[in-house]
Amino acid sequence: MTEREPGSLTWPRGLSGMCYGGDYNPEQWSLQVWAEDMELMRRAKVNLVTVGVFSWSRLEPSPGVYRFDWLDQVMDLLHQTGIRVNLATPTASPPPWFSFAHPDALPVTRDGVRLWHGSRDTYCVCAPAYREACRRIAQALADRYADHPALAMWHVHNEYGTWCYCDHVAVRFRQWLRARYGDLDALNEAWNGAFWSQWYSDWDQILPPRATQYLPNPTQMLDFRRFMSAELLAAYQEQRDILRAANPDIPITTNYMFYPGLDNWAWSQQVDLTALDHYPSATDQRAEEQTAFGADLARSWARGHPWLLMEQATSLIYTGDVIATKEPGRMLRHSLSHIARGSEGALFFQWRAPVAGAEVYHSAMVPHAGPATRVFKEVVALGEVLERLEEVRGSVPRTDVAILWDAEAWWAVESAGFPSTRVRYLDAVSAAHRVLWRAGYVVDFARPDADLSRYRLVLVPSLYVISDEAAANLTNYVANGGHLVVSFFSGIADPRHHVRLGGYPGAFRTVLGIRVEEFHPLLDDAQVTLSTGDTGRIWSEHLHLEGAEALAHYVGGCLDGQPALTRHRWGKGVGWYVSTRLDDDAYGRLVFRAAEEAGVTPPPTGASGECEVVRRWGAHSSWLFVINHSDRPHHIPAEGVDLVTGAEVRGQVSVPAGGVAVIREAR
Amino acid sequence: MTEREPGSLTWPRGLSGMCYGGDYNPEQWSLQVWAEDMELMRRAKVNLVTVGVFSWSRLEPSPGVYRFDWLDQVMDLLHQTGIRVNLATPTASPPPWFSFAHPDALPVTRDGVRLWHGSRDTYCVCAPAYREACRRIAQALADRYADHPALAMWHVHNEYGTWCYCDHVAVRFRQWLRARYGDLDALNEAWNGAFWSQWYSDWDQILPPRATQYLPNPTQMLDFRRFMSAELLAAYQEQRDILRAANPDIPITTNYMFYPGLDNWAWSQQVDLTALDHYPSATDQRAEEQTAFGADLARSWARGHPWLLMEQATSLIYTGDVIATKEPGRMLRHSLSHIARGSEGALFFQWRAPVAGAEVYHSAMVPHAGPATRVFKEVVALGEVLERLEEVRGSVPRTDVAILWDAEAWWAVESAGFPSTRVRYLDAVSAAHRVLWRAGYVVDFARPDADLSRYRLVLVPSLYVISDEAAANLTNYVANGGHLVVSFFSGIADPRHHVRLGGYPGAFRTVLGIRVEEFHPLLDDAQVTLSTGDTGRIWSEHLHLEGAEALAHYVGGCLDGQPALTRHRWGKGVGWYVSTRLDDDAYGRLVFRAAEEAGVTPPPTGASGECEVVRRWGAHSSWLFVINHSDRPHHIPAEGVDLVTGAEVRGQVSVPAGGVAVIREAR
Amino acid sequence: MTEREPGSLTWPRGLSGMCYGGDYNPEQWSLQVWAEDMELMRRAKVNLVTVGVFSWSRLEPSPGVYRFDWLDQVMDLLHQTGIRVNLATPTASPPPWFSFAHPDALPVTRDGVRLWHGSRDTYCVCAPAYREACRRIAQALADRYADHPALAMWHVHNEYGTWCYCDHVAVRFRQWLRARYGDLDALNEAWNGAFWSQWYSDWDQILPPRATQYLPNPTQMLDFRRFMSAELLAAYQEQRDILRAANPDIPITTNYMFYPGLDNWAWSQQVDLTALDHYPSATDQRAEEQTAFGADLARSWARGHPWLLMEQATSLIYTGDVIATKEPGRMLRHSLSHIARGSEGALFFQWRAPVAGAEVYHSAMVPHAGPATRVFKEVVALGEVLERLEEVRGSVPRTDVAILWDAEAWWAVESAGFPSTRVRYLDAVSAAHRVLWRAGYVVDFARPDADLSRYRLVLVPSLYVISDEAAANLTNYVANGGHLVVSFFSGIADPRHHVRLGGYPGAFRTVLGIRVEEFHPLLDDAQVTLSTGDTGRIWSEHLHLEGAEALAHYVGGCLDGQPALTRHRWGKGVGWYVSTRLDDDAYGRLVFRAAEEAGVTPPPTGASGECEVVRRWGAHSSWLFVINHSDRPHHIPAEGVDLVTGAEVRGQVSVPAGGVAVIREAR
Repeated sequence: MTEREPGSLTWPRGLSGMCYGGDYNPEQWSLQVWAEDMELMRRAKVNLVTVGVFSWSRLEPSPGVYRFDWLDQVMDLLHQTGIRVNLATPTASPPPWFSFAHPDALPVTRDGVRLWHGSRDTYCVCAPAYREACRRIAQALADRYADHPALAMWHVHNEYGTWCYCDHVAVRFRQWLRARYGDLDALNEAWNGAFWSQWYSDWDQILPPRATQYLPNPTQMLDFRRFMSAELLAAYQEQRDILRAANPDIPITTNYMFYPGLDNWAWSQQVDLTALDHYPSATDQRAEEQTAFGADLARSWARGHPWLLMEQATSLIYTGDVIATKEPGRMLRHSLSHIARGSEGALFFQWRAPVAGAEVYHSAMVPHAGPATRVFKEVVALGEVLERLEEVRGSVPRTDVAILWDAEAWWAVESAGFPSTRVRYLDAVSAAHRVLWRAGYVVDFARPDADLSRYRLVLVPSLYVISDEAAANLTNYVANGGHLVVSFFSGIADPRHHVRLGGYPGAFRTVLGIRVEEFHPLLDDAQVTLSTGDTGRIWSEHLHLEGAEALAHYVGGCLDGQPALTRHRWGKGVGWYVSTRLDDDAYGRLVFRAAEEAGVTPPPTGASGECEVVRRWGAHSSWLFVINHSDRPHHIPAEGVDLVTGAEVRGQVSVPAGGVAVIREAR
Repeated sequence: MTEREPGSLTWPRGLSGMCYGGDYNPEQWSLQVWAEDMELMRRAKVNLVTVGVFSWSRLEPSPGVYRFDWLDQVMDLLHQTGIRVNLATPTASPPPWFSFAHPDALPVTRDGVRLWHGSRDTYCVCAPAYREACRRIAQALADRYADHPALAMWHVHNEYGTWCYCDHVAVRFRQWLRARYGDLDALNEAWNGAFWSQWYSDWDQILPPRATQYLPNPTQMLDFRRFMSAELLAAYQEQRDILRAANPDIPITTNYMFYPGLDNWAWSQQVDLTALDHYPSATDQRAEEQTAFGADLARSWARGHPWLLMEQATSLIYTGDVIATKEPGRMLRHSLSHIARGSEGALFFQWRAPVAGAEVYHSAMVPHAGPATRVFKEVVALGEVLERLEEVRGSVPRTDVAILWDAEAWWAVESAGFPSTRVRYLDAVSAAHRVLWRAGYVVDFARPDADLSRYRLVLVPSLYVISDEAAANLTNYVANGGHLVVSFFSGIADPRHHVRLGGYPGAFRTVLGIRVEEFHPLLDDAQVTLSTGDTGRIWSEHLHLEGAEALAHYVGGCLDGQPALTRHRWGKGVGWYVSTRLDDDAYGRLVFRAAEEAGVTPPPTGASGECEVVRRWGAHSSWLFVINHSDRPHHIPAEGVDLVTGAEVRGQVSVPAGGVAVIREAR
Repeated sequence: MTEREPGSLTWPRGLSGMCYGGDYNPEQWSLQVWAEDMELMRRAKVNLVTVGVFSWSRLEPSPGVYRFDWLDQVMDLLHQTGIRVNLATPTASPPPWFSFAHPDALPVTRDGVRLWHGSRDTYCVCAPAYREACRRIAQALADRYADHPALAMWHVHNEYGTWCYCDHVAVRFRQWLRARYGDLDALNEAWNGAFWSQWYSDWDQILPPRATQYLPNPTQMLDFRRFMSAELLAAYQEQRDILRAANPDIPITTNYMFYPGLDNWAWSQQVDLTALDHYPSATDQRAEEQTAFGADLARSWARGHPWLLMEQATSLIYTGDVIATKEPGRMLRHSLSHIARGSEGALFFQWRAPVAGAEVYHSAMVPHAGPATRVFKEVVALGEVLERLEEVRGSVPRTDVAILWDAEAWWAVESAGFPSTRVRYLDAVSAAHRVLWRAGYVVDFARPDADLSRYRLVLVPSLYVISDEAAANLTNYVANGGHLVVSFFSGIADPRHHVRLGGYPGAFRTVLGIRVEEFHPLLDDAQVTLSTGDTGRIWSEHLHLEGAEALAHYVGGCLDGQPALTRHRWGKGVGWYVSTRLDDDAYGRLVFRAAEEAGVTPPPTGASGECEVVRRWGAHSSWLFVINHSDRPHHIPAEGVDLVTGAEVRGQVSVPAGGVAVIREAR
């Protein structure tokens, strides 16, 4: 099956406005509740619901015995109500009968613990019986519903990401390794099999990285993560191809989160519409920061095309031990923050709070207390706003700043036995995004090997692993006039996880004009002071200039007087280097200086973390989103019509504390 | 075998005074030591010892081969010394030969880890071989000793509470579920099988809640806990019936702790004399608080009848990482605190500190250093005091305040995936007990479905799960004039662990005259302030009055101005509601106000947490226990004779720092 | 094979100067790199390299198929370069083919988790297949290289210490227990099998201490640790005997660390040259403290003979989460600190930093950045210093102070269920060593049953387990004039882990003239105050004088007025007792007072923790090592020639901040 270009089929069939709705689980409710659901959905202007995500045991109650009657009824009822259906394959949760018949298809941990039925995601993606059962249920759904008039989109599975270390996985891992390395000596070289006597003499000796006596082999770990991402993607593709064959006009997606289990660049090539599930994990400003981060990632994965926020929560923030409640208005602002960054709507997990089960306290559009609640009122209000934003569809924000993002670097940075467990990839990338977001910049994420010519400034936080080709791409980018701000622990290794010898940061030494001879990771709360008065934490380095100029030196300690921040003219551009984890202010100053030198387009006036101002550009128009997260009014220069209120905006728009505006700009 | 009413056979046969003694393990010692034991027991006025708790491998050294010679000698020797025997069945620790022959009878953790012989409690209660071996050894003991003149009581097993997740357990769990639900659809409905595709099509697919991929099913978890409690109880009953058949005149008990493995209300119906093992876990005032809490629970389980403190420690407090030492005098005070609350004596684990083994540092009546020690001197002194308290036996304290206690609520409140891991059932119940205990009240615990008419005030802390019948019981209680103080996270769910829809706290909305639309759990150390100036932690709620009056509102935050504490006249009584975790002072003020309105009998003058004053009532007399935990004298109004000193008491008794008095009251 | 007396064959064959070099892994590199290695080794004056430690899969790529060509080349190349070879047997890391063929030879954790190939040390030492494979590869290496002219020493295995709980282990454990106890009743008595029904009726019922339901049997645990040490030693001996038979003139060793897996006293009897791997775990002064501690232990294990620092790191300190970097000069100082204490050189793990693998960031003599680095320059400088120290070989330091060290006590002190998890053996011994080291004393470690007559002062920190014979040895030591400073939790138990009854500290009551009736462990940060104003933590005791005098009493609390520190004249000597964990200053004062009374030789003038001054004594000369760890110069009285600078020293030597001197003393 040939790939379809993302963006070529991104409209859920038959839907005109912004998508609005959520996961709908009618199988948990009576017919009487269904009737109320239709009424409430109409009231909330819901136009798209995701059905069937976890319905396998209700659709196929015993092997090969299907019960579609209830789903037929639901599809028809929704169709009659004018609501479109995002129909899911239920493969994220195999039914009890399946696990009972195929215990070998249950997942197994690194420690060899088999995980039993009783939750969700209790499958091994490499188990042949599981894959076959998935194809069968996908085919059965395709056969029955591919031409149903309510069908708008297919939703394959849910949040792929379940790992396993069983013998089925070993078999598939070996196949993948054969394909990658060709012969065993290439694998032995790549895995440095001469170290600790790990030279394989037969493919069958190779295992997934199960529990072992001491530190695991880092390349084996990295390859296993690559493999799991590819294998899960292959499982997705099998279902997608079945669904596409049944009706090529229906877009197909799968919803994902950005945790480090998947190479989302590769996945996004295989979906028609990139779909993100997003749940902030903190209640303070980080919630907004994470929202922008997730939305910028999703748009970037979609290669600049619109995408869809597939799941968010109406009124909860998981903080770990406590499920916090979203304050009034915050749901609207988060929704608009996603949409400002390219989402074609706002969907929720879930329509109606369940009466029982493991997620009984996951929030919903209709809470346990029913529609006479703040939450449902806000749901209705959001529906009204979204209805007015229909014209925005198809537009996207623009930017000339990018941050490199690479799942392999993530996996590699966090290898066991590395110099500091405090160097975390997501921390590094988030810091880069945060300083720009707080200053009002919209930022793209980019692959290291992408065409970067549209960007004036590219940030490279802790990109530990990079191929020669990608490194050349970045060098050429600078040679042609780009500005590259590289942070420590970047460019160190090649894709085999081999350190580039002769001095760090191997792949970037030439373009940065430096040579690092030794890392000096910092303990606990230790800090280093720079000659600028700035401070760094977590990391420092013994660095030599080889063409670069020093912007700041270390002061005190055994690195006293050594360069800490550097700048290197290379070709028509500049390579900047940051050898410690600067605090946000200092990091920001460096990045903004680079942005200025690079000629980056400034953000809209008044844009900041506390009042986001983001512009979506269409073919002929533009829309300015103003989202005031603060407790005071903000006044933002604008001209046009505020779609939220309908008011004309002349010169500036005043957005009250906690409020939003979306101005169709007069040009 | 028909049930015997608790209280009908509560005297260990042949014992007249308060029970005094402990676990006695002569099998660990030489004959020479036995002789010294008899001498020291006489000196300490010991009259009851528990023998044989962990003696299986010495009694049945190989399958079916019994060696009773040493136990015969011990029984005879004790009899000659005038000490009565609480003879144990040794089934808490199967012998090595048993585990070797039946590895399938070793327990298995959730993760599938088999736990091997080498400690104690290495059994699976569902393993048929284990149950059969238990019946055999119980029968052998019954055959030999049921008519032994030293035998005063049977002590079945020890601290039942070992869980298992093996295939034997799965079989029994399914049987129990069949009995509970009848047909599979009822189970599927109860477990909300439509959620996450957990609809079972065959009983054999059902498993104990083993390790699984993500959140477990809460109803499955709750049912498993119910089942384990019932199954362990069935195992107890098998042994009890054998022992009772051999001699119906000997009372039978089993000793338990109050951790959440068992439904102690059900258990207490099956024992002749409720027996508590109690070990405080803190060295500060919480030790006394926990002592009163445990004793009040035990008396309540015994349905107001006397009970027996079966185990405590002479001189240790397990605090987790450190075994702290009990200060001089504390053992006496703890013993009297239990007796004041209805215990018919004070027994210890253990008579003599062992020379080796896993509990070599568990304290004892005779320490490693021998009888020439502070500890043994205090043991002798306690024996003297108890001898003077013989007349107290059969009396009990009285109260018109109760706290509801329900193991199912405990299990349910702490379900995975719930809004806050900081809401702990025991914390909530302890806080209710503590504020009353510190103010000098003696409190009963009661089942939610009990006849509450004897109480003027009933506290309901976090009673998450409640049946319709029990809810009606509480509503009627208020309608008939009772005062009910309900704390947050109560009444939410039915026994299937299904949320009652339409608004929290479902089962109590009518009686409390409120409707809660949303929970607002608090993070970490966050606090809410009330209009009264009081503060709450952990929890807050968005609450609407539906008939109730607000006693306090939230101040600030997104709940500003919403009711926090409410009061609702209902029928002849009042329902009070507390929507946050008040600090103890504020909670106390509310509870004391309710007590006053309810006309609760005030506690004895001078009663407090630092000086406990508790009255036991007999048919014709009463005894006032005064236990001064403080470092200064307390003067308590009293008239009568102090049994401890023999002194007459006129008007008041002065109890020195750390001292005790027990006054037979003149009436 | 008869034992060889340590010290009889301690010179790596053919080596005249101090040993200098490290682990060399040419199998990871190309021929071109080999050529550079030879050049750089010459530059650094390397004279000894360890080859082949983890080369099994390159030497025996499939079962019985050997590839010695590359090793032949390496040996010849090194020989031509004039570098001697410490040739290792590679048995610490079996090849993948071995684990694949013998999954039963993979180690299994207490929880039953099998640890798979993928790291190093994935073997069960009790697996017959493993032992046989080890003998085969050792024989093959012996056959081929025993007479190679480059061969200087054999290096068996690497850091023995891998435990297992599998069925092979059970079989061997039982054999060892039979040998120890003879008959089963003796074992049952020793393990106190009457406790918790653990009386075995057949040897086959006995298991390694696998995961169990609750606290394990302490004697079973202790015996298992004894057994594992003995079994690992037996595995070593098998290889050693093969190698010795091939060429009796080559010394044989194995490198070890001092973690608690092994009884190093026993091991050191079986090696020709004691070899220590040493890695400090902290970056502050503890790094130097640990270095002296490790070196003093190694010298003591070697029974006063020279020994060899087999591994250290050029530039890293593992601190747990972070790999810190050694500051300039620190490597030299640490190397000399080892040599001052008797090491015959300084070897490193590793020669060249690997390009990939689990220890890619372990530091090396040649870093990733190559020879143009600070680290390699310091390596060259150290080589030059060591060349000048050739004459020092064969000499050793002398001292008349010893600390008792016993692995069994370590294992026993940390038994589960003991009074305080905060009592750690290594903490107690380190504190004893630290107060002496900071005051400039060099200290030996000694076995409890050693001839102590050469020492004037012996410290006994937390020697929980001691045999009657060893206790008598210590009593006689005092009777004959020795001073013994015993700290709490000593002498409590016999080798069966049975408490000595009648009062603590059992074995030492007579010599110390005290009787402890009860322990009072302290919680968290609680302190006790003594009448001297000193404070103690962690522990206190209720102590009675039985002949001793009290040097200090407890003040306040329930021990108010009880003795805390005591002194007892016994025979010609004195027994001192410390019943709490004094802070270092107070402990030091007590120890120095005892040292003065005992007539201990004072340390060299100026010696301290920040400037170590240590004298090595030869037959006819002495050398004074001065190692200035501080950031200011130190001036130390000395006469002679500084071998480092060649300068004459008259009256005193001035050593600059961070510097070192080694003075051949004029006498």
